[in-house]
Parts: sequence; structure tokens; C-alpha cells
Amino acid sequence: MSKTSARTSKLHLGFVGLGRMGLNMAARLHHGGISCVGYDANPKARAALRKLGATAAASLRELVTALPTPRAVWLMVPAGVVDSVLDELLPLLARGDCVIDGGNSHYTEDLRRAERLRKRGVDAMDVGVSGGVWGRERGYCLMIGGPKPAFKRLEPVFATLAPGVAAAPRTAGRKGKPDMAEQGYLHCGPNGAGHFVKMVHNGIEYAVMAAYAEGFNVLKHANAGRAAQESDAETTPLEYPEHYRYDLPVGEISELWRRGTVIGSWLLDLTAEEMLQDDELKAYAGRVSDSGEGRWTLQAAIDEGVPATQLAAALFARFSSRGNALYANQVMSAMRHAFGGHAEKPAGGK
Amino acid sequence: MSKTSARTSKLHLGFVGLGRMGLNMAARLHHGGISCVGYDANPKARAALRKLGATAAASLRELVTALPTPRAVWLMVPAGVVDSVLDELLPLLARGDCVIDGGNSHYTEDLRRAERLRKRGVDAMDVGVSGGVWGRERGYCLMIGGPKPAFKRLEPVFATLAPGVAAAPRTAGRKGKPDMAEQGYLHCGPNGAGHFVKMVHNGIEYAVMAAYAEGFNVLKHANAGRAAQESDAETTPLEYPEHYRYDLPVGEISELWRRGTVIGSWLLDLTAEEMLQDDELKAYAGRVSDSGEGRWTLQAAIDEGVPATQLAAALFARFSSRGNALYANQVMSAMRHAFGGHAEKPAGGK
Amino acid sequence: MSKTSARTSKLHLGFVGLGRMGLNMAARLHHGGISCVGYDANPKARAALRKLGATAAASLRELVTALPTPRAVWLMVPAGVVDSVLDELLPLLARGDCVIDGGNSHYTEDLRRAERLRKRGVDAMDVGVSGGVWGRERGYCLMIGGPKPAFKRLEPVFATLAPGVAAAPRTAGRKGKPDMAEQGYLHCGPNGAGHFVKMVHNGIEYAVMAAYAEGFNVLKHANAGRAAQESDAETTPLEYPEHYRYDLPVGEISELWRRGTVIGSWLLDLTAEEMLQDDELKAYAGRVSDSGEGRWTLQAAIDEGVPATQLAAALFARFSSRGNALYANQVMSAMRHAFGGHAEKPAGGK
Amino acid sequence: MSKTSARTSKLHLGFVGLGRMGLNMAARLHHGGISCVGYDANPKARAALRKLGATAAASLRELVTALPTPRAVWLMVPAGVVDSVLDELLPLLARGDCVIDGGNSHYTEDLRRAERLRKRGVDAMDVGVSGGVWGRERGYCLMIGGPKPAFKRLEPVFATLAPGVAAAPRTAGRKGKPDMAEQGYLHCGPNGAGHFVKMVHNGIEYAVMAAYAEGFNVLKHANAGRAAQESDAETTPLEYPEHYRYDLPVGEISELWRRGTVIGSWLLDLTAEEMLQDDELKAYAGRVSDSGEGRWTLQAAIDEGVPATQLAAALFARFSSRGNALYANQVMSAMRHAFGGHAEKPAGGK
Repeated sequence: MSKTSARTSKLHLGFVGLGRMGLNMAARLHHGGISCVGYDANPKARAALRKLGATAAASLRELVTALPTPRAVWLMVPAGVVDSVLDELLPLLARGDCVIDGGNSHYTEDLRRAERLRKRGVDAMDVGVSGGVWGRERGYCLMIGGPKPAFKRLEPVFATLAPGVAAAPRTAGRKGKPDMAEQGYLHCGPNGAGHFVKMVHNGIEYAVMAAYAEGFNVLKHANAGRAAQESDAETTPLEYPEHYRYDLPVGEISELWRRGTVIGSWLLDLTAEEMLQDDELKAYAGRVSDSGEGRWTLQAAIDEGVPATQLAAALFARFSSRGNALYANQVMSAMRHAFGGHAEKPAGGK
Repeated sequence: MSKTSARTSKLHLGFVGLGRMGLNMAARLHHGGISCVGYDANPKARAALRKLGATAAASLRELVTALPTPRAVWLMVPAGVVDSVLDELLPLLARGDCVIDGGNSHYTEDLRRAERLRKRGVDAMDVGVSGGVWGRERGYCLMIGGPKPAFKRLEPVFATLAPGVAAAPRTAGRKGKPDMAEQGYLHCGPNGAGHFVKMVHNGIEYAVMAAYAEGFNVLKHANAGRAAQESDAETTPLEYPEHYRYDLPVGEISELWRRGTVIGSWLLDLTAEEMLQDDELKAYAGRVSDSGEGRWTLQAAIDEGVPATQLAAALFARFSSRGNALYANQVMSAMRHAFGGHAEKPAGGK
Repeated sequence: MSKTSARTSKLHLGFVGLGRMGLNMAARLHHGGISCVGYDANPKARAALRKLGATAAASLRELVTALPTPRAVWLMVPAGVVDSVLDELLPLLARGDCVIDGGNSHYTEDLRRAERLRKRGVDAMDVGVSGGVWGRERGYCLMIGGPKPAFKRLEPVFATLAPGVAAAPRTAGRKGKPDMAEQGYLHCGPNGAGHFVKMVHNGIEYAVMAAYAEGFNVLKHANAGRAAQESDAETTPLEYPEHYRYDLPVGEISELWRRGTVIGSWLLDLTAEEMLQDDELKAYAGRVSDSGEGRWTLQAAIDEGVPATQLAAALFARFSSRGNALYANQVMSAMRHAFGGHAEKPAGGK
Repeated sequence: MSKTSARTSKLHLGFVGLGRMGLNMAARLHHGGISCVGYDANPKARAALRKLGATAAASLRELVTALPTPRAVWLMVPAGVVDSVLDELLPLLARGDCVIDGGNSHYTEDLRRAERLRKRGVDAMDVGVSGGVWGRERGYCLMIGGPKPAFKRLEPVFATLAPGVAAAPRTAGRKGKPDMAEQGYLHCGPNGAGHFVKMVHNGIEYAVMAAYAEGFNVLKHANAGRAAQESDAETTPLEYPEHYRYDLPVGEISELWRRGTVIGSWLLDLTAEEMLQDDELKAYAGRVSDSGEGRWTLQAAIDEGVPATQLAAALFARFSSRGNALYANQVMSAMRHAFGGHAEKPAGGK
């Protein structure tokens, strides 16, 4: 990444929050030539940063003091504590400084906080970061919101964190110097735009995951016709059991689809990796958590008046996987009992 | 129903299959003045029919012999045995006779069987029957397919089984002598049309049931904000727990909605009845069976190229209620583990 | 309703908002023996009230003055103007008075407003009202939230507006004096509970409507096999066109299902009425509006973590009906073009 | 691909159907060292094959004659004509020959045809082929069903068509000689298994496409708050229009997400390519066709009793995009009119 060397020689960054994600990002920045001063309340996290050769401050105050002005401080802390970190940090900053929220804040929080910072002459930026535990090596995709001048000033930081154009073949028709989107970071718009785009990214992720999950489930049950056919009035018998007598190698299929198909993707790559260990996936009970962005994307779709049926179904499948459809199901069983005298079948059947 | 007296004095009907449904129907016919000869392989069922004052035959042959020509034989047997009953019955019948399938056959079976009967000069009729365990008293809604002349000849039978116009207020704009739809039976079209309409009826039923079930589940969880808020990275905390602190009387609400609302319905009436016993519905485990028609309606929608998202979601909610989404959920958990290092949360959380 | 006579002789109610809904409610109250003083900014509305024999005030101040203390003022105004009406009304009220919001407010607004009113010693009540244009005659189902004492004091008002127990057969197992739910009104809980329950009522309504709509669409297309089968690579031919050759009498079927079926309901009654005019429904372009409660119910389900797939699909079908899926569809067409060279088929095909 | 040279020197393949897909496949085979004899009814297609240096037969008979025994004939013809090709081809074949169906047949057809061929001592194989217009260069992913010995004999053909292991990084944990799944072809099971797996692949494809499409639509409408807010009773106003004032660069975002995110995929690569031309996608009207496999996957899910909500919603979104929800929407508008007097809003609004 020689092109950034001239710029990065000048750039210093404060980095608050050295958890799993933050420490990896700080490491990538440090190795990329950005001068990083990190802080975390946990001394072990600070020690880990020092081990990488970067500077760890013992307090927010020390971190702020160590930075040349105008300062830039990147927060990589849980969404729930951003405001309290700002409470402590903001009085230490000066006009022209900049605070970047790289965590999982809802974009409407960005709008509110930008207003708060603006009153003190401090710029706010929001950055949706994708890359997970793989990003240190693979680079982080950065979806960025906030004032353009602040973005310009910090561009070397973003370029260093991003995967770079070589991470994927160039799109047909793209020529010349790669633009920022091709390098893996993008100024998406004013405050909140970065987290908005990241939110939708996660919404898509939920639905794509559910799409694969359903498909593998259909493959897994391709032997449904082998089961002894129950024949009571509460069960729909398979009309053609002879059509469902396949014991498909789902793990090998997840590997197979990685090459040459329409559905190749990184999520599929990961699925193949998991299934290589055990394609019965016995390590998992199937209780799927969700962490906010899927819910927020759905709310955005509702507000905008655009359909998001896939996303809704994917989110709700997760809710159901955690047992939250129980009462709804009881209501249906009760109705069936009431109008048809139907009794529920015991567990174990289909 | 004085108008049917002249006709019914002449009408005889053979009735095969005296199970819960069939016996009630035969009873309603008998009391309505139709001369019924019933048959069931089970001697207890035949005894029950005799107790009602109607005639029970000891065999299909005896039943056929007891009927004046042209004969009409109503089958009220499980869909899976219709063909074998026909194997035995058909050789006993003569040109001009008629066989009515009042069970839950797929309408495409009607098309096939009509062809078979036509070759022997026997008319086939298919009748979708709604009414469940309540029909003897309430009357049965009849959706009828088959040749018009046969329908005309049997109309007194249908009129006797049907609820009659008094079962609901007349629709504004309907005047004069009630037509057949108002009385609760309808000739819907050629062979298969009756079961087609009944199939879609049940498809709608699935989706309507799921609509209420979801709504009651939302009411039931209106106290979600009372639960101690978990705060780990795998859980989305409620943004405003103070908005979800209602312990709503769901049972009373099911009763409340029966009067004056937009969503009043017979299914709601039944729900109110069930909830009056126990609005926790503890008698039900929430494993909801499905019995074919919902699946068939969905297949019809697919063939026709029309959307049936509600119905699909309702059917699939039943599949999920029986644990059939398990592998799909495991796949999603495995993916989350692979890209984000997320571990599943134990059962008991939300 | 003799039991209410003693109470209603004493009860006065201020009624603000005499639009289509409000005027009908005021009329029902007036005829039910509640002494009503109404107000509306529109003189024609006030004149209409006077025509009914009730009192119309020329201003909010005049309305407040006309009421004995403790006063009760029912607001039946658009959700968007409740706050500005309160701005004007609140200074005119005294400790112990009560304001009832009978409009379509989001229940979280009730929570906020109750706080505001409480500071002035005024009770807030929220009432979800179902009944639409039919309520004057049929009665209104009332879902009520707010402090119990205020509810008790106003119960005669609620009982007068409600349909009364005779509006539906009593639920099996209900005996003795009908409780409030059976009469069609219910104290559901503290502030907001009324609008919460009404919100979910409407969410269910959306999904139930969509269920019928899908079913009738499947019936309508039962003749799909008659169409000349297109045979290009972009079209899936019907495997068995002979299975889809029914021209079903959808209007008559809507009437038929009103009696004896599992899916009888008021919505079906109304559908039968509309289809009696024209079962092609040519008066409608199929652009289906939504008015908030469906969106709110979906958000509540998301917050509670319970699945609402039916409701989501129903809401999103409305969004799509208004053309809001367009860009999503263009994205899918673009993808198909990109990976398979597929060109879109012109409009007019299936 | 040196490892296949010894084998391929001996392998001859008859190839029937030289359309867009077939010709490219034959070209890849020819260049990979498989001796191909092709046939197509269209003389231009035969000429195109000769131009590549491969042999074109003037008739099926000539093609069969040109092949050494045991013969292998690959059909790459529309699903609708496979049976008639077999009518002509089968009498020309001998015991021990093999016919491979590489087209889009429903897997149940494979089961039926395998029986037919077995009676003549001919092996049937079914191969689901993914790769579209890109496969000649990129290789084809092959999902294969049929008897194992026939598979073994033809493995060099499959290996030549497949992308090869280098087409994607090896999955962590995979070592040594790449197995067939890693090379991009897999023997999935007995007859039908290949098309079954390909069918589910396409089902997943539908749902993944819809997931991206919904997400981009949410991004596209992130400026919903800029529109003048309508305020009539039929429109839900945005509660916080200031939250929806982003004009997001959707085209650049599609490029951005290609690197470092969780949702990177080949479909996204293609989307970025399309959006680079015009991110308004004006060339597309949004009428999305479907070509069978999505429908079949949904039917398989129904038969197996496993939920496929994502897939159903994706398929039905396509149906709706072609106007097939119209009558359902009219029913909903009619109901709204009937119970609430709601009139439809004209087109142009939201």
C-alpha cells in the first residue's frame, strides 16, 4: 500500500476500546503506518496493545494529551456505552477535533450525537465496520457517514483499515485508479449514513443466511420418504414417498457450490468450513440470536413504506428458533381442537 | 323448509362411511326427510345409525340393492380409501347412478375418478363439506362440483345438509327467494370444482388462524419490558422497556373482540371459548398439525403463478411448530459462529 | 339496558371532534341517555349535532363551562392534532377532570400524555374504538386503558357505546350477568393498554384481510390452464393445464362461505356485499393504503421478539400494491440479466 | 489439468443440443481433450461447433454411429423435449450405453426416465449444471445423480467441465488431493439426486436475490423523509422525516460491499457490474420471470414438511412483480371500502 505512505506518516489516531474487534483494528492500523494511541479500561487490553508495539494510554485524558491537534479519536465500544464515553471524552477535546464511532450504534443515535458534538465544534463521524474476527487479515469494509472535510482528513486511516482493491477482481468496466468503493471504504453521506448502510448490510445478511439455511434444510430432509408413513387423520401422508429417498451429502454439497455456481459467497465458504467439521452440526442447538441491526432495518423498511418480506421472515425465524412462537402455536392448536376436535400429536412425529 | 317436503319424499340416498362426520350428516339427512341407507364396515357405526331410526346395510351390495334407481351413493370415507371403496362399489352400480365423494380428496383425484366412472355411465360428484363437529346442528356448508343434471337431481339432499339462509343475516342487496349460495350450498362447476373451492377455504383458514395466533402472541408478550434485561453481546436489549409493561387479559380480549369489531369471526368465537377454560392454553404443547388442504392450496397458487405469502407463512409456521426448522436454525448458528465467533445462548433466554 | 338508566341520568360528557366517526358516536350516546356537549371547529358539524337534539358548544371553553365537575372530555380527533387540542383544552380543566382519547393515537403517545395530564391532576384514558361506519347502529367495541377509578366513573358511557351482549351468542360456559368483555368494552390495563390492544386488533385485521384476498385470488386464477401456454425459456409452463380450467363464481362463493364454514366472519360478510355489486371489483385499482396500526403492531412484535410473519407479509403486500417494490424488482431483473442473459418479458404475459 | 490427460485420451462423448449453453460446454470439453461429437437440429449450431474444431453429426443416428461403445450421450436440450429426443435416440443405443440429461428437468422426470432406460439396459444420469453464460471460461458446477459405475466412467468429462479447485481458496481443514466437491463436481446420489440438488441451488438463488433486492430498495428509499408529507387519513405520515434524508450512492455501495463484508458473493459482483452502467436500473421494468426450479423447491419443502418461508416470499415477489396480485389487492381495497368507507388513493402517491 505504498500510495498511502506519504499521508500516513502524518496521521495520528486515538483508539478507545481494545476488545476483540478493536485490538485487531488497532493492530492493522499500527502495521499500516498509522500512529495509534489506544485506551481501554481493562489493563490486559492495554498490555496487548503495547505488545503490538503501539502506545497505550492509561486514561482518556492521557490519550487526548498524547495526540496532536486537530485530534481524531475512534470509539470501538459497545453501543450502550458510547454516550458515557462521550461524557468523559468531550470536555477533553477542542474545536476542530473529531470523534469517530465505529461500533454498532443505531444511525439515529449518530444524528443526535452529531448535534451534541457540533455544539462544541467537534466533528462526528460514524463508521459501519464489517469484517468480524477475520478483518485484521482480510481488511475491514468501512461504510462512512459525516462531514466531507473530516472524511478527507481521515481518509488514510480508512484506506489502511480497508481490504484494498486486490481483495476482489475488479468489476468489468472499472478502469484507472480504483476509487474508494473499490478499495473497500466509502463516504456514504452525512452523519448517520455510515451506520444506515451498515444496518442494511446486516439486514441483507440475515435474509441471505436464512436462504441458505432453508435450502440446506430441504436437502437434509430429502429422505423424508424413507420414514415410516404415519396414517392417522392428523398427518398428511407423502403422496409420492419414492420421490424423497435421497441421503444427500450436505457437507460436500456446501463445498461443491463454492465453485462455478450462482450462489457462491463468503457465507457459503464459512458454511462449508463448519460442515467439514460435522455436517450434522450437532454442536449447535439451533437457537439463533439477533443483535439489533436486523430489527432496525425492518423498522426502516416500515418507515419508508417498502416491502421487506425476506428480512422479516428471516428475523422472525430467529425469534421462533428461540421458542418465542410458542403461545401463537398453542392458540392454533386450541382453535383446531375447538372446531374439529383435533388433538395434538405427541412430539417425535412430524 | 316446507319447499323441500315434496321432493324429499322421493329421495333416497346411500351413505357409506359412518364415522364421526358421516354419522352426523346421515342424522341430519334422516331428520330432514331424506331416506337414508347407511353402511360402514364397523358394526358399532351401523348400530348407531339404526338407533337414529335410519336403515343400515350389512354390506355395500345390500346398500346398493336397497336403493331405487337411479341410485345416489355418498362416500364419507378417508381420502386414502376412496379408490378401494370404488373398486368394490362400482361393479354393483348401473348406468345413470351417481357417486358423491364428500371427503377430503384432492380435486385432481376427482378429475381422474370422474373419468373412471364416466366409462361405466356413472356420474361423479365432489362435495367439499365444512362444518366439522358442529355441523349436525349448525348445518354443513357444501361446495359442489360435477355435472349439472346430477346436481339438480340431488339438490334436496344438499339443501337438507346446508345451514339454510337463516344461519346468517342476508347480505344487503339480496332480495327475494334466497339462491343456493345463501342457503349454504353451491354448484361451483364441473368435476373437482367442489373440492377445489373447499381446498382454498382451508388454505384461507390456515392463514386466518395464524393471523389471530400472532396477534394474541403479541398481546401475551406485552410485558416483555418487565423481564430483567440481559445485556450481553448476543442479546438485543429493549430500547424502551417502559413501553412493554402490560399484563393483558388475553382471554377477556378474545371475548371482547367478538362484538362490534372488524375481526369478529367464528374462529374468534371458538378462541374465546377455549380461552375461557384457560387463557394460558396449558393443555396444548403448540405442535400444530396440518392435514393436506393447506399444502394443496399452496401448490395451486404456485401453479397459477399467484402469490400466497400469507398461506405459505401459515403452513410453514405449523411445520416449524413441530420442530422441522431445526437443521435450518443450526445452519444459521453455525454461520454466526464462523463469521463472528458468536456462541449460542442457552435455552431459557429470549 | 335498564341497568344503566340510573347512572346515565347523572352522566355528562364533553365530546370534541364531530367528524364521520365522532358524530355517530355522539348520536349513539345521546340516544342512550348520556348528556352530550359537543364541539367541532367546523360549524356544519356542530349544526349536525344540534339536529340530533344534543348540545353543541361554540368553543372548547364553552364546552368545558357547560360540563359539571369532575368533567370528562372525549377527544375524537386525528392523531396528529391531539397535542394541539390538549394545549388549548388543558388550561381550561381542573383537578379531577378526565380526558379520553378515542382516536388512533400510538399507545406510546398515551404514556407520554398521561404524564403530562397527571402533572395537572387530570386523568388520561385511552380508548381504542372499533366499529367504523357501522358502529352507530351496531355499537362500538371499546378497548380501554387508564386508571381504574376513572374507568369506573365513566363505565356508563362505555356501556352505552358498546354493542351489548346481545350482539353475539354467548360463549359456551359464560353464565350469569354478562361481564364487560361480553358487553363489548373492557378495561385492558393502565394508560396505553387500550390503544395497544386496538393496535393489535388492526394488525390482525391486516393479516386476516390478506388471507381472504390471497384465497380469492387463487380461486380467480383457477382458469390459468385455459390461457394459451407460452413456451419460451422465460416462462414456466403449467405441467397440468387440465387441472386449471375452472371459471369459479367467486362472488357466489363469498356468499356461500358465510354459512356453516370455519372461515365465516364479518370481513367475509362485507366481501360478499362488495362482490354482489361486481365480483370483478373493477371499481378498485388495487392500491391498498395502510394507516399506521399495522406498522406499529409489527414494531411491537419486533421489540417483543415474537414472530409476526403473517402481519409483516400483509403490510408489505400493501406496500407492494402501491408500487413500492419497484426498485427491488429491477434489481432482481438486473441480476438475472447479468448471470443468465435473461431479458425481461413485456407486460401482458404472466 | 494434466492429471486428466491419460483418461481423456480415451473418452468420447456425444453431445445433443448446441444452444447457447450446450455449445459453450462442448467447447470447454473439446479444449479439455474430450473427443466430442455434437448434434443439433439447427445447421448453424452444427457449423458453430465445427468452427471450434469439434465434430458435428448431421443426425442422431450419425452421432450414435460415430461413438465407440459403450457410448455416452449428453443431452443439453429444453426440459420439454427430452422425452421426444429419447424417443428417437433410445432405439439407436445398445446395452451398456449411457444418457446424461444436463438440462433443467424436474428430478422426478429423471426417476421416470431412468426406469425407461433401465429396461433397455441403458444407464441414465442427471446433471444439474450451474454456470450460465459464464461457464465456458469459469467452469461449470456439476451436481450429478445416477449409478456410481457410470459416474466413475464419465468422471473425466465432469472434471473437464468443472471449474477445478483453483477457482476458490481451499476451505480451512481441507488438505491433500482435492476431492471431487472441491473440484466443482459431485456424485450426489442415485437417479434424480443431481437435479434435486440443482433445484435447491436455484431455490436458494431466488431467496438470496430477493434479499439483496430488498436491501437495495431500503437504501434507495432512505430519502423518504424528503418527500412532501401527505396528511390525509389514508396515509401514514413518517414520524421522524428527519431520519430519512439520505441520497445514498447505491451503485457505489454495491461495489463497496464486494470486499471485506459478510455479504460478498458472486451475485453481488454482478449487481455491482449492472449498477456501474446505471444505478437507477432504468433498463429494467421490474417484471421478474421465474423458470421452474423455485416452484419445484417450494413443492419439495411442502412435501418434506420443512419451512421455506424465504423461498416462498421470493417466488411470490416475482409473481407480484408481474401483476399477479392484482385481484387480491382489489379484494383488500373492497374490504376497506366496505368497513371503513375508505376510498383508494390515486397512483402517484405512496
